[in-house]
Amino acid sequence: MNHITTRQVLAAQSWRYATKVFDATKKIPADVWHALEQSLVLTPTSYGLMPYRFLIVQDAAKRTALLPHSWGQNQVVDCSHYVVFIARTEMKEADVDKLISRISQVRGITPDSIKFYKDMMMKDVVNGPRGKTAHEWAARQAYIALGNFMTCCAALGVDACPMEGLVPTEYDKILGLEGSGYKTVVACAAGYRADGDKYATAAKVRYETKDLVQVV
Amino acid sequence: MNHITTRQVLAAQSWRYATKVFDATKKIPADVWHALEQSLVLTPTSYGLMPYRFLIVQDAAKRTALLPHSWGQNQVVDCSHYVVFIARTEMKEADVDKLISRISQVRGITPDSIKFYKDMMMKDVVNGPRGKTAHEWAARQAYIALGNFMTCCAALGVDACPMEGLVPTEYDKILGLEGSGYKTVVACAAGYRADGDKYATAAKVRYETKDLVQVV
Repeated sequence: MNHITTRQVLAAQSWRYATKVFDATKKIPADVWHALEQSLVLTPTSYGLMPYRFLIVQDAAKRTALLPHSWGQNQVVDCSHYVVFIARTEMKEADVDKLISRISQVRGITPDSIKFYKDMMMKDVVNGPRGKTAHEWAARQAYIALGNFMTCCAALGVDACPMEGLVPTEYDKILGLEGSGYKTVVACAAGYRADGDKYATAAKVRYETKDLVQVV
Repeated sequence: MNHITTRQVLAAQSWRYATKVFDATKKIPADVWHALEQSLVLTPTSYGLMPYRFLIVQDAAKRTALLPHSWGQNQVVDCSHYVVFIARTEMKEADVDKLISRISQVRGITPDSIKFYKDMMMKDVVNGPRGKTAHEWAARQAYIALGNFMTCCAALGVDACPMEGLVPTEYDKILGLEGSGYKTVVACAAGYRADGDKYATAAKVRYETKDLVQVV
């Protein structure tokens, strides 16, 4: 594999910022979006269960409806692609069976040969400790996708703004999620910064490395 | 900025897998680790609050002690760098003041000029809705860091294995976190795959894009 240099990785991380103002006329080209979409699909999750979906809200009326439930942040309407991360409300045997079936299909093996794996998942995310807080567990997986997505955006020179400032229950209504088994957990606006976004040039604020990272 | 190509981003995502067997003799070089460490530091978080820390467990005795509380997964002892993500147990005014102070310092402005920002955070993550579930909110931020870290590992050709299969309370004891205001939420082993890891060549299992990504 043709790996990326440390300099490129550091440059991408330094270049990105939570974009406040998007240029509404600039759209992410199809090939770049394809890579970003695949970064969502290829995100690693616990057991590989992918307990989430990604809604790309491109309908202008829906975006306008979401705006007042997004603390009025105009990124919702001005960005090129608006990604809403939705996560399973609970985990059932059917979720586990669906993965077992997919593994069997992709790897050309029988479901019986990985019954131990089904049992392991059942005892944890369905009937076990994680089953009790399944939505929260699923939400954490969605946040892995969010982290992955933002990093890939930065790598590709696409601006992004993570959006926790939203009302999940109102999003659920507008996006028709009630009764779907999924709930809104977070969103991310992606596109290109407007020339006038003053935050683009503001110094990045992080605690010192020694305060965040400790060798023990 | 010298951006990375879509082909490189896709290749990195396809190359990575949850490494089951690490080559214990191969260590991440200092310059590569520096970039990975900075990816942790530069992770975006809600309000920029960074309600977490990253413990790099390099002490062999500590790793051995963690092993039985990690479902016996040998990645804990065999990897080059073992990162434990710990998140704030609650959010207090002091957490907010610390960030306000840091913003003032880095951007050369007075704390008074961003008092509105302090008020906003106080009304949400301390005394408001997110304050009630502050640890979970902090854990989600740690998962952004986890996603970012795994993606940067892949970009740099470093293998990784996310570790949810661990007992947080036992980790907290071994790592001396009790009473520290932080709790273990997840871990990630990083290093280089062993030649014999059969999972390295197993077909990657994901649901079809149309089942995970929907345009609305």
